[in-house]
Amino acid sequence: MNAKQLKLLLESVKDGRETVDDAVTRLRAMPFEDLGFAKIDHHRSIRCGFPEVIYCEGKSLDHASAIFDRCAANGDNVLATRATRELFDRVHQQHATAEFDETACIISLRQNKVAPSEGTIAVVSAGTSDSRVAEEARITAEMMDQKVATYYDVGVAGIHRLLAHSQDLQAASVAIVVAGMEGALASVVGGLVDCPVIAVPTSVGYGASFGGLAALLAMLNSCASGVTVVNIDNGFGAGYAATLINRTRNSKAG
Amino acid sequence: MNAKQLKLLLESVKDGRETVDDAVTRLRAMPFEDLGFAKIDHHRSIRCGFPEVIYCEGKSLDHASAIFDRCAANGDNVLATRATRELFDRVHQQHATAEFDETACIISLRQNKVAPSEGTIAVVSAGTSDSRVAEEARITAEMMDQKVATYYDVGVAGIHRLLAHSQDLQAASVAIVVAGMEGALASVVGGLVDCPVIAVPTSVGYGASFGGLAALLAMLNSCASGVTVVNIDNGFGAGYAATLINRTRNSKAG
Amino acid sequence: MNAKQLKLLLESVKDGRETVDDAVTRLRAMPFEDLGFAKIDHHRSIRCGFPEVIYCEGKSLDHASAIFDRCAANGDNVLATRATRELFDRVHQQHATAEFDETACIISLRQNKVAPSEGTIAVVSAGTSDSRVAEEARITAEMMDQKVATYYDVGVAGIHRLLAHSQDLQAASVAIVVAGMEGALASVVGGLVDCPVIAVPTSVGYGASFGGLAALLAMLNSCASGVTVVNIDNGFGAGYAATLINRTRNSKAG
Amino acid sequence: MNAKQLKLLLESVKDGRETVDDAVTRLRAMPFEDLGFAKIDHHRSIRCGFPEVIYCEGKSLDHASAIFDRCAANGDNVLATRATRELFDRVHQQHATAEFDETACIISLRQNKVAPSEGTIAVVSAGTSDSRVAEEARITAEMMDQKVATYYDVGVAGIHRLLAHSQDLQAASVAIVVAGMEGALASVVGGLVDCPVIAVPTSVGYGASFGGLAALLAMLNSCASGVTVVNIDNGFGAGYAATLINRTRNSKAG
Amino acid sequence: MNAKQLKLLLESVKDGRETVDDAVTRLRAMPFEDLGFAKIDHHRSIRCGFPEVIYCEGKSLDHASAIFDRCAANGDNVLATRATRELFDRVHQQHATAEFDETACIISLRQNKVAPSEGTIAVVSAGTSDSRVAEEARITAEMMDQKVATYYDVGVAGIHRLLAHSQDLQAASVAIVVAGMEGALASVVGGLVDCPVIAVPTSVGYGASFGGLAALLAMLNSCASGVTVVNIDNGFGAGYAATLINRTRNSKAG
Amino acid sequence: MNAKQLKLLLESVKDGRETVDDAVTRLRAMPFEDLGFAKIDHHRSIRCGFPEVIYCEGKSLDHASAIFDRCAANGDNVLATRATRELFDRVHQQHATAEFDETACIISLRQNKVAPSEGTIAVVSAGTSDSRVAEEARITAEMMDQKVATYYDVGVAGIHRLLAHSQDLQAASVAIVVAGMEGALASVVGGLVDCPVIAVPTSVGYGASFGGLAALLAMLNSCASGVTVVNIDNGFGAGYAATLINRTRNSKAG
Amino acid sequence: MNAKQLKLLLESVKDGRETVDDAVTRLRAMPFEDLGFAKIDHHRSIRCGFPEVIYCEGKSLDHASAIFDRCAANGDNVLATRATRELFDRVHQQHATAEFDETACIISLRQNKVAPSEGTIAVVSAGTSDSRVAEEARITAEMMDQKVATYYDVGVAGIHRLLAHSQDLQAASVAIVVAGMEGALASVVGGLVDCPVIAVPTSVGYGASFGGLAALLAMLNSCASGVTVVNIDNGFGAGYAATLINRTRNSKAG
Amino acid sequence: MNAKQLKLLLESVKDGRETVDDAVTRLRAMPFEDLGFAKIDHHRSIRCGFPEVIYCEGKSLDHASAIFDRCAANGDNVLATRATRELFDRVHQQHATAEFDETACIISLRQNKVAPSEGTIAVVSAGTSDSRVAEEARITAEMMDQKVATYYDVGVAGIHRLLAHSQDLQAASVAIVVAGMEGALASVVGGLVDCPVIAVPTSVGYGASFGGLAALLAMLNSCASGVTVVNIDNGFGAGYAATLINRTRNSKAG
Repeated sequence: MNAKQLKLLLESVKDGRETVDDAVTRLRAMPFEDLGFAKIDHHRSIRCGFPEVIYCEGKSLDHASAIFDRCAANGDNVLATRATRELFDRVHQQHATAEFDETACIISLRQNKVAPSEGTIAVVSAGTSDSRVAEEARITAEMMDQKVATYYDVGVAGIHRLLAHSQDLQAASVAIVVAGMEGALASVVGGLVDCPVIAVPTSVGYGASFGGLAALLAMLNSCASGVTVVNIDNGFGAGYAATLINRTRNSKAG
Repeated sequence: MNAKQLKLLLESVKDGRETVDDAVTRLRAMPFEDLGFAKIDHHRSIRCGFPEVIYCEGKSLDHASAIFDRCAANGDNVLATRATRELFDRVHQQHATAEFDETACIISLRQNKVAPSEGTIAVVSAGTSDSRVAEEARITAEMMDQKVATYYDVGVAGIHRLLAHSQDLQAASVAIVVAGMEGALASVVGGLVDCPVIAVPTSVGYGASFGGLAALLAMLNSCASGVTVVNIDNGFGAGYAATLINRTRNSKAG
Repeated sequence: MNAKQLKLLLESVKDGRETVDDAVTRLRAMPFEDLGFAKIDHHRSIRCGFPEVIYCEGKSLDHASAIFDRCAANGDNVLATRATRELFDRVHQQHATAEFDETACIISLRQNKVAPSEGTIAVVSAGTSDSRVAEEARITAEMMDQKVATYYDVGVAGIHRLLAHSQDLQAASVAIVVAGMEGALASVVGGLVDCPVIAVPTSVGYGASFGGLAALLAMLNSCASGVTVVNIDNGFGAGYAATLINRTRNSKAG
Repeated sequence: MNAKQLKLLLESVKDGRETVDDAVTRLRAMPFEDLGFAKIDHHRSIRCGFPEVIYCEGKSLDHASAIFDRCAANGDNVLATRATRELFDRVHQQHATAEFDETACIISLRQNKVAPSEGTIAVVSAGTSDSRVAEEARITAEMMDQKVATYYDVGVAGIHRLLAHSQDLQAASVAIVVAGMEGALASVVGGLVDCPVIAVPTSVGYGASFGGLAALLAMLNSCASGVTVVNIDNGFGAGYAATLINRTRNSKAG
Repeated sequence: MNAKQLKLLLESVKDGRETVDDAVTRLRAMPFEDLGFAKIDHHRSIRCGFPEVIYCEGKSLDHASAIFDRCAANGDNVLATRATRELFDRVHQQHATAEFDETACIISLRQNKVAPSEGTIAVVSAGTSDSRVAEEARITAEMMDQKVATYYDVGVAGIHRLLAHSQDLQAASVAIVVAGMEGALASVVGGLVDCPVIAVPTSVGYGASFGGLAALLAMLNSCASGVTVVNIDNGFGAGYAATLINRTRNSKAG
Repeated sequence: MNAKQLKLLLESVKDGRETVDDAVTRLRAMPFEDLGFAKIDHHRSIRCGFPEVIYCEGKSLDHASAIFDRCAANGDNVLATRATRELFDRVHQQHATAEFDETACIISLRQNKVAPSEGTIAVVSAGTSDSRVAEEARITAEMMDQKVATYYDVGVAGIHRLLAHSQDLQAASVAIVVAGMEGALASVVGGLVDCPVIAVPTSVGYGASFGGLAALLAMLNSCASGVTVVNIDNGFGAGYAATLINRTRNSKAG
Repeated sequence: MNAKQLKLLLESVKDGRETVDDAVTRLRAMPFEDLGFAKIDHHRSIRCGFPEVIYCEGKSLDHASAIFDRCAANGDNVLATRATRELFDRVHQQHATAEFDETACIISLRQNKVAPSEGTIAVVSAGTSDSRVAEEARITAEMMDQKVATYYDVGVAGIHRLLAHSQDLQAASVAIVVAGMEGALASVVGGLVDCPVIAVPTSVGYGASFGGLAALLAMLNSCASGVTVVNIDNGFGAGYAATLINRTRNSKAG
Repeated sequence: MNAKQLKLLLESVKDGRETVDDAVTRLRAMPFEDLGFAKIDHHRSIRCGFPEVIYCEGKSLDHASAIFDRCAANGDNVLATRATRELFDRVHQQHATAEFDETACIISLRQNKVAPSEGTIAVVSAGTSDSRVAEEARITAEMMDQKVATYYDVGVAGIHRLLAHSQDLQAASVAIVVAGMEGALASVVGGLVDCPVIAVPTSVGYGASFGGLAALLAMLNSCASGVTVVNIDNGFGAGYAATLINRTRNSKAG
């Protein structure tokens, strides 16, 4: 029940077409979203430029492709993360314009596009093994109409590689830093830029990296201010949060 | 050596006032910041509205108050977190306008002020015991000239308390969510708003909260997109990051 | 030795057919269950409506199907959790009425049925990936003759989905809440209802969910009173405990 | 706004004393509890026999006693857990009938009493050091008008001590099992009774008990069905949940 | 009811002084220990040479000294571990022959003595800081009438110190190895002797010793066969278990 | 160089057949075992009744069978733990009398036998899934010429099953208790018997059993005295240690 | 841009062939390494005797062999760790002199050789299962032109095996100690030698070794001074660090 | 028994002054160090320039000062780490030239001095709070006659501070890197230098630093080769190991 419907109800009470008791009953029983709290619904609703996102890991081929179809039917952009080529082959039969990024394991279907955002999201990664997660972040942000610049393989063991890009990094609106092993890159980037930094620990490493725990703890303890952290390997989450931050910028006129 | 100085050096080479060998030597030996990479220095430099921040825990009274004096001498705003009343009594003798927030354990000295930012940072906390950390976030952001609105004691065990504020929350540029115990508030707020959410786990809880670990893990695993996390009890970090995000918004014109 | 046998022994002492010393010896040596402590045995005994439960994980096909046969021979209901289709194919040859639930991985054989319980057990789950565990809880309770109502995919990131069911939930006798990732649903449901809540953490999640540890800790630290917790993915345990609770209600007349 | 107030509002709309637009505005703005979703509020509201509960740890004397006064002013029963004698001395000046339990560290103020529940809650503890937590559970349940029977110091190292009470335990509606160290008592009691068992791990132990972690994990892994677990040392939570379970029984007539 | 009382009961049945039904009732209701299952009771009962043991940590002075008095009243040997001098001063007033070992923090009262056991228990410790735990083991075993030989400060960083005693060690019936830090001593001793080795990890260490966890894990993973482990700092447990092992030897004749 | 060889060397020094300097050189260079410290070598040496033990996990078929051959060539008993049928098929071709225990995954080759020990080792296990580990313990002890009695599937959820065997258990020289999940059985057995108890945690369980950690911690924290613990799933270690303990008994005459 | 190029640039400025502004631009844009900060680059650069190292785990066959080709093209020695035979077969087609070490899983291609270092690196390992890691260390060091001596299977359970080599060990410049399970070997070797010791925990073990955590913690807590630790299974890291240490020795003349 | 004494013994055998049997007995019983394995003893022995080290934490004043006296009596340098001013006051009465470093909590007594080593040990620390540990490393190395250069407060959040010293760092023989929080400095320094790097995690930090665990894991996972790690806060260990490494250099001539 939205504001308009609520008004209609009250008017029929006023007009005597509806008794007070019936109105009380209807008001108490109505779902919350009917009260017009549409925003509560936003994560599932289709809003301009926000893709529907399907997390494919652990879903059967049938299940995942059916969800993909349903999402696509709305005319929205669709993003399927942790997807396999098998799934893509299936999806591709129905959606000829869908694309598959082998590194990021993402299927994307772009059905509409808005003007790109102002401000650039920098995606910085430590090693080539972190690329899968970094690319997941990049594609997520791009599907949400953000400009993205990538700086890969600039880990701290060769600090000059990173410093060579310091001016470009300083021009970004948001920086996403993707690193496994000791995760030190987040702190170094955090010290170079004055935009918000989203750190993504990856499970890249062995032995006492304990599946990304070492990088996660390091990033949470970053000595650089302005660094926030998402879950291990959660490139999607970082891309999504960076987009929200950059939208803040673009929403200023509003 | 900034760009101007570099130009001067090259001109004296051109003019023959400086030999090529001497120039090579000077160029190779010069500190990086002299090359004009001023931004590298930004965390320590004094920039309009960014306070100097002193983390007092573990510092002696003498040490902490001396640092405070040195920071204040620059004419900047100064923020001392995890401070004691003893330290404040000492600081107050030298800096009559310094203020002490007993809940947040913060000493603040405001020596200059800029026009407040556009956009509001919402600070949301779960229980009254989380106030210390929430207040640390609030004061940090305010010292950096942000507008802050607080929503305290709105934990998920009485979800209606939070929902009553949902429209206000949806108007914020950034939301900081402070919660201990099971940290569920971050996910619920993340589902209500579409601005970036910074989650701060607190060490409030007992038994299997393991000093905030339960809330930290919960927040990292939030099912709501757009949530990023800072260290346990790190209200300062959340306030700082939220300010960077909101500045993104305000920097648009730039 | 049951009460009757004990009486016989004492009578033969009285009659002099048995010496006192021999009786002392026999009394000291007899197994405890012979003393009539039948209740000690209850978990293994066959009582009306309690199914025999076989945990299949790690058991060979031969082993599991043999146990199934033995249980079925008693005429009882039989429940085999964590079962495979292979096992079902085998079991089905002997027990034509056995059924297999593909989602919950449960084989059930109903050989007798009592009138359904009063009171309803609500099974609430956060995401579609939690279904396996939620269904395990549902089927367990139903095999023990409970009425169950399910509320699936009502995770806290879209809180209105849950709130839309709040009145139904408030009518339940017991609520089982199944959630992975950050496990926040348990706290929110715990704040909505005033019946006992059994929280089941699932291993759904990735990165720092550490196989369900994040959800487990969150649920143990729930800020809502009245929440108790079972092991990770233990849908059976939750269904069993919820049944015991609801039986408490139905046993009132006794 | 309760149902009555809602009716009044609708009647003034009907009567034309209030415009439809004003009514829309008021309806959308009102706090949820005013819509009559009273149950949402139940944890904070005062209902017959449920005490207001104050968790005192980490609260200042001033703070804690002020909350106590405010709770007591409603005429409700009040329960203050993890309280000190100092706090009691303060509280006692205002509330002459308040009582202090030195072992459980609980202040209780009983201002009204209902007929005791049917069914008995058994509180079973392993060692004398677990008494504080066990007593917290007992007093919590009793303040909520439950009948409680206690079986203390019946740990599994001398199993006969427990078995001597097995018949009494089997007569309970709910059993609360409080144990530190290896927490084995929960499994043994779970095997003896067929009512729901709430296990409370305590931080009693040393070395590799890791503050109650050993007992917590043991209880979560109990081989006995029907056992659910609350947080370490959370006697209050166990007493509260047990009461909810026993109320299930007593609410049958409803 | 012990064997004698049981016999009396049966005799009164025989004599007709007691009816069979009354006897059945009494037999079923009597506590298990009354049936003469004395062994069930053994940990609490007083048997030749086994001291009553009181774990004092966390017990009040009043409580601890009262328990001591009660134990002593039985004429048994009494052992109070983790005791303070304050407690000893109190105990000493009542029990003039009680002794206090300042290193081990043990109060011991010897009221009877049997011939010492055959076979020697070797107590080996790595560093001087491990002495408290090693002495707790030694005194425990001696109070249970065992012969003990001690080899202290023979840690593996100076392996020759240990090797110098290898022949003596090889003559022991049981070896208790007490070590903190990396706990390597257990493996080395386990490789030198062919008697059972009980390893006691201590909380001695810092940083990544995590309160004895490092030594505990090391000892559990010992590459030497025949090593078993007790809880961190549990010198009493090691002394007790070693005594049971050595009694095995001495009970051969039985 | 054994004592005899040492004597010969000294005699040739005495006789002048060997110079003092040469003797010094030989004495300093000789391997330690040559000095007659034969016991240092005992774990690798062949002593009556001690089998050579090969841990097969992670060894290639070629490697494992080659080691087996080498061990067998000494005429000793050989024990290969964690073995596969493939390995057995290979071994069996060379050693026709070798046997394979499918449950325990052990290959054993008995080439000599001594009179069985006095005293019985009781192997007690909680559930059928613990059999593999329990059987590993049993076979290990039997290969070392011990008498073993087994009590399987007597977990604490049905305590009467265990109590029915209490007298037999009390007659054992050593008890090995094998249990996964919550590991409570060790404490209960520890309370029933007064012989040494070796607890073996198993990785049986799921969710928060964390691969046997729950059982391991529980056993280390056992409230029953006289319980020591070996590594998770280390049936061999328990069987070996129990044998050493029982040998203590049998060595008394020596 | 190296020093020579820098000089050329400055000379063209001097000569007027290049404007000052252009030179400023070029100087600010040039990669850092061009400024002659060659050392910053050292890990990636080709220096005499340092092989290029490729960590193959998780890299596709195509990817890994392409990197190998690129490295080899520089004429340097190449080392590929955690390699498979499949990769080797591929690499071998292009590089006929490449060698594969099956135990260490290393492909090595030696294209140039310098005189061997002074001083010997001792590689000591506890058990045969630790060989893979030990060999990785040995080959790494040898490819960097170090002399290596190996002492394998000298674990502490048979301490005499190690002691037999003590004089040789004492002659080493650096010792690498490789051990899994309880990792005690590092402390014992640390106590025998007075050269630096690098300890490498391995994931060899089971149960509570937790993938090498037990050995890692033990080594970090070593009671022997002079022991430092690398990551679990990181044989390469140990070989690399040992080489750096031994180069320190050889660089003395410099 | 050293080589000389051994020779004397053999000569008296030769001369018949000692029987062969007596010699056998003496040879088998003699402590190992008497065989001339003097190096085994080195950690406790007094060698030129190696101070005696006393770890004071947990030692009583009496105990610690007595050990200090005994060490000093040998004429050696003495180092007491984790010392208090109280201890120093006591020590100072006996040893007028002893010095106390308030930051490092070290008492040092220099009684002899050798020519300083060649090569410099660089001690690099991240923040001012890491000074205590860094100073412990510096003083340890200096007492062992090493040249030390310190670079404090050069954490990665302001990377230019570190880079300004890169040339000096590159000249060091060994680098000790001391850092808490995320420990990233070790990786960055490891990438700048080509000498061995010893990383010391400190317990500086809060929340998810878990007492230094975050820094420890980060350092173990360093992406820079050549980094080895010591225990949390173990400045002494780092200083000691660095000295051993630098001695390698100085021992070349030998």
